[in-house]
Amino acid sequence: MIVDINKNILIVGLGLMGGSYAKGLKRYGFHISAITKDQSSIDYAIKEEIIDEGTISIDKEMIRKADIIIFALYPHILIEWIKENQKYFKTGALITDVTGVKTSIIYDIQNILRDDVEYIAAHPMAGREVYGVENSTTKIFNNANYIVTPTKKNTKDAIVSCMEIGQLLGFENVSILTPEEHDDMVGFVSQLTHCIAISLMTCNESEHIEKYTGDSFRDLTRIARINDEMWSELFLLNKNSLIKNIDIFLNELQNFRNMLYNNDVDGMREKMKKSTIRRALFDKKD
Amino acid sequence: MIVDINKNILIVGLGLMGGSYAKGLKRYGFHISAITKDQSSIDYAIKEEIIDEGTISIDKEMIRKADIIIFALYPHILIEWIKENQKYFKTGALITDVTGVKTSIIYDIQNILRDDVEYIAAHPMAGREVYGVENSTTKIFNNANYIVTPTKKNTKDAIVSCMEIGQLLGFENVSILTPEEHDDMVGFVSQLTHCIAISLMTCNESEHIEKYTGDSFRDLTRIARINDEMWSELFLLNKNSLIKNIDIFLNELQNFRNMLYNNDVDGMREKMKKSTIRRALFDKKD
Repeated sequence: MIVDINKNILIVGLGLMGGSYAKGLKRYGFHISAITKDQSSIDYAIKEEIIDEGTISIDKEMIRKADIIIFALYPHILIEWIKENQKYFKTGALITDVTGVKTSIIYDIQNILRDDVEYIAAHPMAGREVYGVENSTTKIFNNANYIVTPTKKNTKDAIVSCMEIGQLLGFENVSILTPEEHDDMVGFVSQLTHCIAISLMTCNESEHIEKYTGDSFRDLTRIARINDEMWSELFLLNKNSLIKNIDIFLNELQNFRNMLYNNDVDGMREKMKKSTIRRALFDKKD
Repeated sequence: MIVDINKNILIVGLGLMGGSYAKGLKRYGFHISAITKDQSSIDYAIKEEIIDEGTISIDKEMIRKADIIIFALYPHILIEWIKENQKYFKTGALITDVTGVKTSIIYDIQNILRDDVEYIAAHPMAGREVYGVENSTTKIFNNANYIVTPTKKNTKDAIVSCMEIGQLLGFENVSILTPEEHDDMVGFVSQLTHCIAISLMTCNESEHIEKYTGDSFRDLTRIARINDEMWSELFLLNKNSLIKNIDIFLNELQNFRNMLYNNDVDGMREKMKKSTIRRALFDKKD
């Protein structure tokens, strides 16, 4: 194992993801420190023994001794933080993240990064509709997918270490995609679905619909409860891919609507059979 | 209580819903008989003590002694069955159903129905993506909504009895809507959501997406596993309402896509905040 528990891990951004990472890695005995903006998050995490130490200031010593730094920050904050504080990084430090988009941030970061540290990006495709370290839990990693997105600048050791982090956290699948493949995939599988949920929730002003709803509507709109600051930024950073995927979906639904308009029962049943077969691939392996 | 346990209940169509109704009502001591097309369903239900007796034939005696007849059949089969076999109904029998659309069937049935029996329509908004009496369970009624859709021809007693059936089964909410209100509501809350799930599942031919998926995609496509025979018929029977609702949704998503295209962050965040507030209304009361 390349990642050994004598290494110090620093988590920057102790929210839902940062907190869940801390919980997940603390199980193995790593020393976990954290830098975040709210003192209450630090206080809570120390009390719950989620971390060993933490601060809301830019603690140079804490940064200097970190072998692995995991960033769980909004994209625009991530790049600025690294620019300003990379001077404190230890030589040979491994930097990784949890950001939901890749091409718009990886190259910029790698271009300004010191030569003696390495940034290997990852995206844990997990989460909850609530936020904050108080809601952190390692359960979000079970049955979830973790994607590592190396570039030509990444070494094999860094890629393997990053994958190991995913395995230690308990992800069901640990995969590798290029940043471009990742953004296209996430544009469809995650971002498009959020746009659909939001639009479904806002398109009908009728009151009391909730009295008549069934599980289908609840399922499709669970993710309509959404962190607007984070998600509007992620959408913009993946704009081309997301628009492409929205258009593909709009076209498909428009086609289905037209089949219905034309009483094309066979056409609709064909689509339904196809969707039933494809959906079976997604059932969680329990 | 108008519905008393000495009444005989006949269930026509012993599938998922018919079987779940049988299980739910048997708890109170009703005598439950069933007529359905597969002998294996009857055999299973007798063995599991879900029903007291059953047959695959049109058993005149079984029909004659039924005080309450619950139809769990596909719409086109329902109307034909009643036309052919209503001559065996007992005077004063109460007829009800579980059909997912109303205006297209209620009036036709009430127009051909004998004067001395009454049909009071209902829609249990519950289900599973699997079918058959072997998958029946009363759990689908918990936290679910049951809608009674009376017409001018329905008596107060029949409406109350029908509502009581919903209460006995364990539905969270028992409500009344006109057939027209029901079809409009179901066109949005149930049928549109199914069209969305199907289109999301069929619009992207990429293989291995399931390796990278997250819960959001699974949630939005759970109902993409769909009984094409039943649902294509339900869509056609509610065509105008469904097309209207699809168009409203398509328009909303197109607008969101345009905001993204125009980098309208404020506009997107406004929609996200609105969807977050509205979604809170739908959380199940546990």
